[in-house]
Amino acid sequence: MDLIIRLFNRYLSKDRDVANRLRPIIGFTPRRIQLFKMAFYHRSMNNDSPKKMSNERLEFLGDAILSTIVAEYLFKKYPNKDEGFLTKMRSKIVKRQTLNEIADKMGLDVILSEYSLGKLSSSMLGNAFEALIGAVYIEFGYEKTKNYVIKNILMKYLDIKDLESKDDNHKSQLLEWCQKNGKEISFVTLSKFKLDKRDCFKVAVVIDGKEMATAEDFNKKSAEQNASLKVVAILDIL
Amino acid sequence: MDLIIRLFNRYLSKDRDVANRLRPIIGFTPRRIQLFKMAFYHRSMNNDSPKKMSNERLEFLGDAILSTIVAEYLFKKYPNKDEGFLTKMRSKIVKRQTLNEIADKMGLDVILSEYSLGKLSSSMLGNAFEALIGAVYIEFGYEKTKNYVIKNILMKYLDIKDLESKDDNHKSQLLEWCQKNGKEISFVTLSKFKLDKRDCFKVAVVIDGKEMATAEDFNKKSAEQNASLKVVAILDIL
Repeated sequence: MDLIIRLFNRYLSKDRDVANRLRPIIGFTPRRIQLFKMAFYHRSMNNDSPKKMSNERLEFLGDAILSTIVAEYLFKKYPNKDEGFLTKMRSKIVKRQTLNEIADKMGLDVILSEYSLGKLSSSMLGNAFEALIGAVYIEFGYEKTKNYVIKNILMKYLDIKDLESKDDNHKSQLLEWCQKNGKEISFVTLSKFKLDKRDCFKVAVVIDGKEMATAEDFNKKSAEQNASLKVVAILDIL
Repeated sequence: MDLIIRLFNRYLSKDRDVANRLRPIIGFTPRRIQLFKMAFYHRSMNNDSPKKMSNERLEFLGDAILSTIVAEYLFKKYPNKDEGFLTKMRSKIVKRQTLNEIADKMGLDVILSEYSLGKLSSSMLGNAFEALIGAVYIEFGYEKTKNYVIKNILMKYLDIKDLESKDDNHKSQLLEWCQKNGKEISFVTLSKFKLDKRDCFKVAVVIDGKEMATAEDFNKKSAEQNASLKVVAILDIL
């Protein structure tokens, strides 16, 4: 009986411990402690446990929630900007590198390193951040999570003005990368056709003689940018 | 004065008309008629009007909302499935082809054709559907939109069981496509390395001697599937 009480107390204090560590980082005391602990379990940490003991499902949910919160935030913040601008701004915010940075600024590495056996990778940080958003959503629902993310994360850790002006010229990023790495790049117009009575262009990005990606748009410059964006993603340059 | 009243009545009746046509399709009478009309404006329909007279911003918002609703629906429906399964199921549901089919089943083509000058393309249907979800969200907020989408759209127009078993073997899809189109395809293991103390593989899909995409995973088969999925997207095969 004594042992049971001791184990029970240890279990309780461990949970209290997690809650205490999370509070200053996330700004509130979570009710569903097990859920919030789950957000920090990377699959590499428990090779032998069943699949559901990892933060990947929560990450899947959190990734979607975060993406929508950011979409709505931008939709309202920029009532006169077109969809292309909104899409670019969102991808600047939700891209892996930015999420890793936010997670780092929040101090999630402290929590994560307690559960981790090996070395922390930066992507584990961003993943844990998304999983945390998933846990917050399950705890509070959409509206409260939205307010929480906007006030306590976006406004606190992101410089939106700075992101606006950040380079989103994917063609020039790609040209620069090719020059650095001694690759030969060219943009080829594959076809010109009519869509909804307007001229439309299909272009390809060719690197060292290999067609890497194609894209279509109503003007050649945009098609080149879109195709470049695909290649930037494929080559994982950003 | 008479003219003003006539114009006013015409304007009113037009709005009433839109509401009347929308009601049987979306299942409720929208309050913000202008917003719901906007959901059906394709940018090709108004070359001369300002940019905001198109459904693209609403489509951006609706795409995010829909994606999150589907993510949450799957997260709850399949409590024991891993993130890979959830991601695949979601992409089967929110991919262009499925959205175009849903929009067609809903009868959005009837509304869309009234605003369209040229021929309706199937992607205009899917886009209008997403824009409509954006409008529903602005009208009702997240919770009501979620219930609406699940009950009136997902449960009504999708056979989830059928989607589960639908082919998601991207490697075999790619092999089949290459055979049909006389292309030579091979899967090349570029490197094997350690990640979190586990073996990790980087593989490339090579078509007619061109490296099309690469992917990494803890086993070769998954890496090949992931790389194939990228190529399927690049080549727009599905």
